[in-house]
Amino acid sequence: MSTDHKRVFNFNPGPAALPLEVLQQAQAEMLDYRGTGMSVMEISHRSKEFEAIIQTAEADLRELLGIPANYRIMFLQGGASLQFAMLPMNLRPAGASADYIVTGTWSKTAFKEAQKLGATHAAANMETNGFNDLPGTLDLDPHAAYLHFTSNETIHGVEFSREPIPPAGVPLVCDASSDFISRPIDVSKYALIYAGAQKNAGPAGVVIVIAREDMLERTPANTPIMLDYKTLAASGSLHNTPPCYAIYITGLTFKWAKQMGGLKAIAARNQAKASMVYKTIDESGGFYRGHAKAAARSVMNIPFRLPAEDLEETFASESKKNDLIGLKGHRSVGGMRASLYNALDIQAAEALTGFMREFQKKHG
Amino acid sequence: MSTDHKRVFNFNPGPAALPLEVLQQAQAEMLDYRGTGMSVMEISHRSKEFEAIIQTAEADLRELLGIPANYRIMFLQGGASLQFAMLPMNLRPAGASADYIVTGTWSKTAFKEAQKLGATHAAANMETNGFNDLPGTLDLDPHAAYLHFTSNETIHGVEFSREPIPPAGVPLVCDASSDFISRPIDVSKYALIYAGAQKNAGPAGVVIVIAREDMLERTPANTPIMLDYKTLAASGSLHNTPPCYAIYITGLTFKWAKQMGGLKAIAARNQAKASMVYKTIDESGGFYRGHAKAAARSVMNIPFRLPAEDLEETFASESKKNDLIGLKGHRSVGGMRASLYNALDIQAAEALTGFMREFQKKHG
Repeated sequence: MSTDHKRVFNFNPGPAALPLEVLQQAQAEMLDYRGTGMSVMEISHRSKEFEAIIQTAEADLRELLGIPANYRIMFLQGGASLQFAMLPMNLRPAGASADYIVTGTWSKTAFKEAQKLGATHAAANMETNGFNDLPGTLDLDPHAAYLHFTSNETIHGVEFSREPIPPAGVPLVCDASSDFISRPIDVSKYALIYAGAQKNAGPAGVVIVIAREDMLERTPANTPIMLDYKTLAASGSLHNTPPCYAIYITGLTFKWAKQMGGLKAIAARNQAKASMVYKTIDESGGFYRGHAKAAARSVMNIPFRLPAEDLEETFASESKKNDLIGLKGHRSVGGMRASLYNALDIQAAEALTGFMREFQKKHG
Repeated sequence: MSTDHKRVFNFNPGPAALPLEVLQQAQAEMLDYRGTGMSVMEISHRSKEFEAIIQTAEADLRELLGIPANYRIMFLQGGASLQFAMLPMNLRPAGASADYIVTGTWSKTAFKEAQKLGATHAAANMETNGFNDLPGTLDLDPHAAYLHFTSNETIHGVEFSREPIPPAGVPLVCDASSDFISRPIDVSKYALIYAGAQKNAGPAGVVIVIAREDMLERTPANTPIMLDYKTLAASGSLHNTPPCYAIYITGLTFKWAKQMGGLKAIAARNQAKASMVYKTIDESGGFYRGHAKAAARSVMNIPFRLPAEDLEETFASESKKNDLIGLKGHRSVGGMRASLYNALDIQAAEALTGFMREFQKKHG
């Protein structure tokens, strides 16, 4: 295969960097998947080859995250954004209320979608703080249909280091899109986890839903099939044609994560990368200012500001010239953002922090 | 790139064969999309590179199908199956009824999903005939919110050669999944067309919706965003992260279709391929029996039976040994099915009909 390709340091917030080994394998198998004479895009979703792809992806994810046997895994479409609607449609019975912890743009969006469809209560809302911190206390409804939180806010760079604790009997639900498989978690604390793949787990076009089996019993009658967890789980994600190629790439990424030593090893590498960047910020004497408060800092997404907007523009353009891609921050926070997902290695963090120090010397 | 790959004759009903040129280009660009140093799977959906991909795909589709300026094009997720629900959610006002022409498994499924959500009327139902024909007359509701038909039934192999005519003022809606861009159509006759890509247009994971602008004004308040045509169209399919790679491959396929001479040339080739297979069936003296009546025969999917089920098993296994893949029929019709989508060339039809004649000689 071609080896004369250019590759950059890719700090995109999602879609984001994939492991080079995954892309190389996909490239090698593009015209002929393991002797079938077809691309993965051309094989039937009912074939034994695709069955092996999806079942292996599920088994590898089960092993990586330590998912107990009483949880079902679904590979669905529509991203986390469709889950914002499917979740209350399936899990919140008529008349019941659901609790949401609002810590950034994504949990706020999930909250608003749930509000459209029924009673929704903010157990905390950190917007007045500019979404730069996690809540101290929660106003929890002991009868809530579920408690929803977003484990990592991609835009604001705040991340829960441990799960919030719901009242006894209230299912805990998590949008884990941007820190999924970035560290070990105790899945048994959760009733349902969903995650768009396009940060740590694969390409855009597939969202992973991990649901405890009792959560599949709440779906109301007459829910459209494609929005019905119970039917989708029962079909093994094969009620209709799934996003086969995105599932294939996601499966290769799970395999890669296992080869990297699993989530403990990946978490240590992620921690090391993030520490290098936060250290560079903290040692800059205020030239770089992180958005999130120290205790809420995300290991995945690091939004930071510079002393002036024109300097931020210069940082964006000069970093790009140095093949550091995707560092412009989201418009709602401004400044810069470094996303350091699983696929980025230590060299990427070194390249970034080296550039940050040089930039400060030149412009500070 | 590798040239020592094996390729087969791929008669899969979907996911299905893609043009070799498309796969070769995707393979060449896998690690470095046009000098970006990233795969298409790794670039931001907000980048100028991806904007060019989706806008070029839309422009090429507009040119291929001759889509008037007052139609919007969306690249969505969830397949045609999610459209079965989104369509009545968006286009059928509370209290109104929608008309469905039921000619096979897919229109029946669309009808049943619409029934879950409101008043739905069958303008015709061909199930008593085993879905082997098109309806002669339609029982049309002059006040219907829309009239829905499935232009080609993938499983039963019946295809409308011209559009049904709705009562004045009733919008015509079409599930065109399995004959999309297989021939020219007059888009101005339609209010809305949707099509899963994974037959003629690309890989699984993206569904194309072409909607006349007035159809975007019916969406009720409080429709979840990911199910709301109006919002999705207004965002240019970029409300959330779209299935970027599937859109990229679909765009390459549209480009290929243009290079093949456009839909007139493609339709002629499709007609030639189907004619060869139907001729082989008709000249077999009853050894091969087509499922659909002559006037309803599909150019895309040709289900046919053999004199006995064990012969059909033998046909399936022997054809596979000869690298003719995907010929086993759907369990609901039984027997064999040849799907002859755009990407298959005349050689594929020659290989199939040659095999059919040899098989009959040997077993007839």
